[in-house]
Amino acid sequence: MTGLFVTLEGGDGSGKSTQAELLAAWLTERGQTVLRTREPGGSDLGLELREIVLHRRGEIDPRAEALLYAADRAHHIATVVRPALARGEVVLQDRYLDSSVAYQGAGRTLDPAQIRDLSLWAAEGLLPGLTVLLDLDPAAARVRLGERTMYDRLEAEQADFHQRVRDAYLRLAGAEPERFLVIDAELPAGQITDRIRQRMAELLPA
Amino acid sequence: MTGLFVTLEGGDGSGKSTQAELLAAWLTERGQTVLRTREPGGSDLGLELREIVLHRRGEIDPRAEALLYAADRAHHIATVVRPALARGEVVLQDRYLDSSVAYQGAGRTLDPAQIRDLSLWAAEGLLPGLTVLLDLDPAAARVRLGERTMYDRLEAEQADFHQRVRDAYLRLAGAEPERFLVIDAELPAGQITDRIRQRMAELLPA
Repeated sequence: MTGLFVTLEGGDGSGKSTQAELLAAWLTERGQTVLRTREPGGSDLGLELREIVLHRRGEIDPRAEALLYAADRAHHIATVVRPALARGEVVLQDRYLDSSVAYQGAGRTLDPAQIRDLSLWAAEGLLPGLTVLLDLDPAAARVRLGERTMYDRLEAEQADFHQRVRDAYLRLAGAEPERFLVIDAELPAGQITDRIRQRMAELLPA
Repeated sequence: MTGLFVTLEGGDGSGKSTQAELLAAWLTERGQTVLRTREPGGSDLGLELREIVLHRRGEIDPRAEALLYAADRAHHIATVVRPALARGEVVLQDRYLDSSVAYQGAGRTLDPAQIRDLSLWAAEGLLPGLTVLLDLDPAAARVRLGERTMYDRLEAEQADFHQRVRDAYLRLAGAEPERFLVIDAELPAGQITDRIRQRMAELLPA
């Protein structure tokens, strides 16, 4: 494969979409063909599955949920991402297997190592050339998303969940320092883009 | 768990539904509470997934398809089958993990051992107390299903596929003779029921 696969990770409100937009503009200017995509929901089948996992009424068994995310991933990687990489494009993807490991693992029902294995089976082992982790304190994310900062009991549980997600992300980054670029998401957007561009420039063909 | 989990396997036209009906009547007469169910589509979520895997237009990546069947299984086993078994009921289920291994494995893209592992992960290791395999020559099944018996090229490929499914089923039964009861599906329905009842009687509480 001749393209470059870049994934953006981090909690809601960490600025992934903003960065994807700024990076796409820069890459296009450099003459690269860019594919912006996401999981879940980056394919036609994926949109149907995204609707089920994110918006369906009623409980979904945790293993069933993990398998639905993996099904979305399998179809998306095989039919959208791999063909783009084979054409030499740069794929900028909002969330990938690290999201599954961090979020589903933080739910505490499932073993993070099993979630990772499941994702890799689904994607036939495809790992990104670069994963950007936009690291943000969950309390700061709440402020950005316009939520109140005083917690009731349910909200405190949610805060605890988001703290576990953040910790899981940082552990994943620590375990694969070559693949991950961790950036403080509270930096100005332009500074963040500069750091990512610097790293991407090393990975792109001249 | 105090109930009994029985699965019915075999190709289309092998008589699984007829047998499930006859067995349910017999069990009810014996005072058992019976749950008849199926995969895919044995739960509310499963019906949505069944619609996708069986009736959706457009190709589905083979791994995505396997993961959707596994998601259906995870939700069905956790929310329908295990609760029924915990209540002491007899669950009569049309198709389970052996179908996945035989059909998806016969498609030749995926490794049967991986399909089995995926199913067992989805179902948290639940295996039936009894699996009835209604074994039928694919040519005989075609006659039963009212299809023509002269093959064009595509139909010959399909015949080859169904032969591989049958072979895979027989291999699975050979590997777990304790769990499987293999019956010639061309026997009269009443004789088939008798044999299954005999084996079930040994497994049911007195």
